[in-house]
Amino acid sequence: MKNLINPEIPLSEAISGINPDRILVLTDENVEKLVLSRIISENPILTDLPLLSLPSGDSNKSLTALTEIWNWLIANNASRKSLLINIGGGMISDIGGFAAATFKRGIPFINVTTTLLGAADASVGGKTGINFNGIKNAVGAFADPRASFVDYDAFSSLPRMQILSGYAEIVKISFISPEGNPDETYDLDEILASPATLEKLIGEAVACKLRIVSADPFEKGLRKILNFGHTAGHAFESLISKKQTPVPHGIAVAHGISVALILSHMKTGLDSSVISRYNSFLKSLYPGLILRCDDYPDLIGFMRADKKNSGESIMFTLLRSPGKPLPDVPVSRPDIETALDIYRDYVGI
Amino acid sequence: MKNLINPEIPLSEAISGINPDRILVLTDENVEKLVLSRIISENPILTDLPLLSLPSGDSNKSLTALTEIWNWLIANNASRKSLLINIGGGMISDIGGFAAATFKRGIPFINVTTTLLGAADASVGGKTGINFNGIKNAVGAFADPRASFVDYDAFSSLPRMQILSGYAEIVKISFISPEGNPDETYDLDEILASPATLEKLIGEAVACKLRIVSADPFEKGLRKILNFGHTAGHAFESLISKKQTPVPHGIAVAHGISVALILSHMKTGLDSSVISRYNSFLKSLYPGLILRCDDYPDLIGFMRADKKNSGESIMFTLLRSPGKPLPDVPVSRPDIETALDIYRDYVGI
Repeated sequence: MKNLINPEIPLSEAISGINPDRILVLTDENVEKLVLSRIISENPILTDLPLLSLPSGDSNKSLTALTEIWNWLIANNASRKSLLINIGGGMISDIGGFAAATFKRGIPFINVTTTLLGAADASVGGKTGINFNGIKNAVGAFADPRASFVDYDAFSSLPRMQILSGYAEIVKISFISPEGNPDETYDLDEILASPATLEKLIGEAVACKLRIVSADPFEKGLRKILNFGHTAGHAFESLISKKQTPVPHGIAVAHGISVALILSHMKTGLDSSVISRYNSFLKSLYPGLILRCDDYPDLIGFMRADKKNSGESIMFTLLRSPGKPLPDVPVSRPDIETALDIYRDYVGI
Repeated sequence: MKNLINPEIPLSEAISGINPDRILVLTDENVEKLVLSRIISENPILTDLPLLSLPSGDSNKSLTALTEIWNWLIANNASRKSLLINIGGGMISDIGGFAAATFKRGIPFINVTTTLLGAADASVGGKTGINFNGIKNAVGAFADPRASFVDYDAFSSLPRMQILSGYAEIVKISFISPEGNPDETYDLDEILASPATLEKLIGEAVACKLRIVSADPFEKGLRKILNFGHTAGHAFESLISKKQTPVPHGIAVAHGISVALILSHMKTGLDSSVISRYNSFLKSLYPGLILRCDDYPDLIGFMRADKKNSGESIMFTLLRSPGKPLPDVPVSRPDIETALDIYRDYVGI
């Protein structure tokens, strides 16, 4: 287990620095079944703590589960000085972070990430929340964990789809970071075969994200570039979860990146060769989405509900070129429909 | 209507400074019936806005009502740049502030207070939240309104009990502020007959509270002195709402102040004449509470659940003398029981 932000501080030391009166552990059923006992045996400070295990999956990032966490904190006499440790993926750090941010107006929490998606994205940056009324993360707060750890050993228990999902966020960062190079990320299997390379990519993604977030903690401007690929990605995710089996977040984002690249070519001068190379990577590794023209009105409706919008326009983060993102580019409905047509052509749906 | 923090900025200017894409109004049914149309006619900027009117009363500061507010914000296409205006007492600013603090991870809000309690206490300081699982304000956030107004004209529509409830917070501030003098607050009817005197007392209470809050926004230390009278007060409030018709917050706090003064004499050397003069004021103006020895275990249980506690001890803010508060004084269960006995003797229950 590695500390993502202060590599020299282990979990036990991070906890003793907080000096909590109680420690409580939130996790999900998959993590409990596959990796929790090993994590506890490697970190004796976690032995015999109150444990709440939520059903796995983003559909459980709900008000019902949030209510269950608050009730469980009360039942276990959690005070303002109690510490919640969220062990799991982004779903657990999102809902656990929000529960901690709002219980008694805020108690400290630590994230222990067991997924590539969590490591690359959810574990730092301070966004917490739940899905509500069919809208992803419609309710939430900005709240920073006191510390954020990654359990790399847990990655070996992840299904391929979860690896792909997390990896999309690393590719995303390579598009928006001045230091990134998307072309270097496309050989996924070689990277997965080299733990040092993967840890380096995750470290760079986290460092890039922290630089952006510290300059704009409440998403007033710059931070919006982290949503590259997410405007269409969230809409894909919402549409699919309404109609079919939900897809993991990063799978939808991987396809959303394709749409954002196409719009970047249309609106902000991105070279089309960047799109071709990305789409080759996407088609060779990622499962396709089922999407028809009839879905466009719903998709655009979901985009409009996105938190980054205001008034009537739909805002995208686009690229001039890799490493040069532009937040808040207003895009018209016909342009979005054209980009969706081109995207469907590219990926062959 | 007066701006509590920046007297020279009227409501219309505070709103245009925020430049929202939409404005929405939250209120309660009493306020809607008694004063809303006058407030709107005096502030044309509030005309024809989406309005949600919650049932009145602290029991509606609930997760159910919070969910209703979030759904209403979504139904009215509120974005992150939309402004919520909370018009009402502390219940409306607490739940409306929390809904705004958590909707899309935070939208701006303005409080327009129509009650003495709201003016003296809830309208500034950043505490928002709901009651949950029988515990007052168990869930919430620290979030500041962009501006805070008081509609003094609405006070004339308040029942006497609501005036007494709000006034208890003004008396409380007079005990903890170095500039305060509790003896000057005891002639309530003379003060109510003089709007200028009342506005001056409210102004002093708000200024004192803002000084304390700005030094300690997240209640790590100093701010706890604002809870003077509230440890026992909240316990009275919770006990009564479990067994009988709930009493207004400030009525319970007025009695909680008596308990805190008695404990201050027992533990921190407060002169007993301060208790006698306060209890005369309390008995002459405030309704009594129904309370028996059998209730002590429940009361102490509620005190233990208070957010300000951690671990096993029960912490009180006590006084050395008026104007010299001490936060976090640990008090044993037998001492609390003794203080409750003495309190019941004083008030004759």
